[in-house]
Amino acid sequence: MFSGLLGTLVEQLRKLPGIGTKTAQRLAMHIISGDTQYALDLASVLKEAAENYRKCTVCNMLTEHDVCSYCADTTRDESQLCIVQSTQDIYLLENMHEYQGYYFVLEHLLSPLDGMGLEDIHFAALQQLVASRRIDELILALNPSTEGESTMNFLADQLAPSVGSITRLSTGIPFGGDIEYTSSMTLVNAFKRRYHV
Amino acid sequence: MFSGLLGTLVEQLRKLPGIGTKTAQRLAMHIISGDTQYALDLASVLKEAAENYRKCTVCNMLTEHDVCSYCADTTRDESQLCIVQSTQDIYLLENMHEYQGYYFVLEHLLSPLDGMGLEDIHFAALQQLVASRRIDELILALNPSTEGESTMNFLADQLAPSVGSITRLSTGIPFGGDIEYTSSMTLVNAFKRRYHV
Repeated sequence: MFSGLLGTLVEQLRKLPGIGTKTAQRLAMHIISGDTQYALDLASVLKEAAENYRKCTVCNMLTEHDVCSYCADTTRDESQLCIVQSTQDIYLLENMHEYQGYYFVLEHLLSPLDGMGLEDIHFAALQQLVASRRIDELILALNPSTEGESTMNFLADQLAPSVGSITRLSTGIPFGGDIEYTSSMTLVNAFKRRYHV
Repeated sequence: MFSGLLGTLVEQLRKLPGIGTKTAQRLAMHIISGDTQYALDLASVLKEAAENYRKCTVCNMLTEHDVCSYCADTTRDESQLCIVQSTQDIYLLENMHEYQGYYFVLEHLLSPLDGMGLEDIHFAALQQLVASRRIDELILALNPSTEGESTMNFLADQLAPSVGSITRLSTGIPFGGDIEYTSSMTLVNAFKRRYHV
């Protein structure tokens, strides 16, 4: 039905995460019926972004430069290093305005079944980075999933001798959540980690 | 937080209909962290589509050619002409596989308050088209909104002498809908238009 260029545009838009056929069609129609200059601007920033983003040579964050703005910022606190899975997580953590240390992006989690091993999480580079700094606190900010847990356990084991302390993000009932609708795993964990008020 | 090219990309994506800040950020991250070739392909089809789509010189549908594939198709039924508001509506109607006639896209509905008059609905071109053909049925497939209703009334008045008959899409309770949740306007209309089973 959507043929020619319009069909191709719909197909390409459908490959975006969370964009189904209907949404892709709506976006494509908006693009061809709207302001031509807008579509050209979007196309050019897409092209530029795709061509210019690469991994920070220090922390693997996606950046327009060889070294990302966080690693290049010498005013941050060198005694803290926060391990995250993806660049997106750095943006979320920065949004808190709570943390002033550095980051390291693993890009993957350890998962033998999916063939994800030490090279996939850039373990050698992380070891080198940790060895080159005096780190008081290594913060493991990974998802509390099976793979996240085993990756955190592995990193804690391996890096404990080289850093002051190792912490991880708190787990429990989400703020505003309801005990009734909390999974039993979460509830057991929240109960075990109960604290004095 | 999202600065540089990534920030620009997020801003551009946010201008798309139904795309909020969070979704724009997720799409942008997907684009810069994923397959570069995909982003380049998307950029190039966007550019091409924006540059190549224009209005059909006969019916105003958005098309890659001077005359759209429907108007160019001489096997369609010249005795029927369906009036729609937008190109998107043509795709929806074609999807039914019920209609074999021609189309005409108004692009707007009459709305004196919004300054939408006869030129905005391409009334002169429509009059000319109707005069040049022997049309048995003129189908008014516009939304049953205030503007849609007054546009349909106007077109019916003006074009009745030049065509065999004028019809409009049925209105009523949507298929699978619930009387309890149907607006009183819709219900009154559905009651008035009740038919023998």
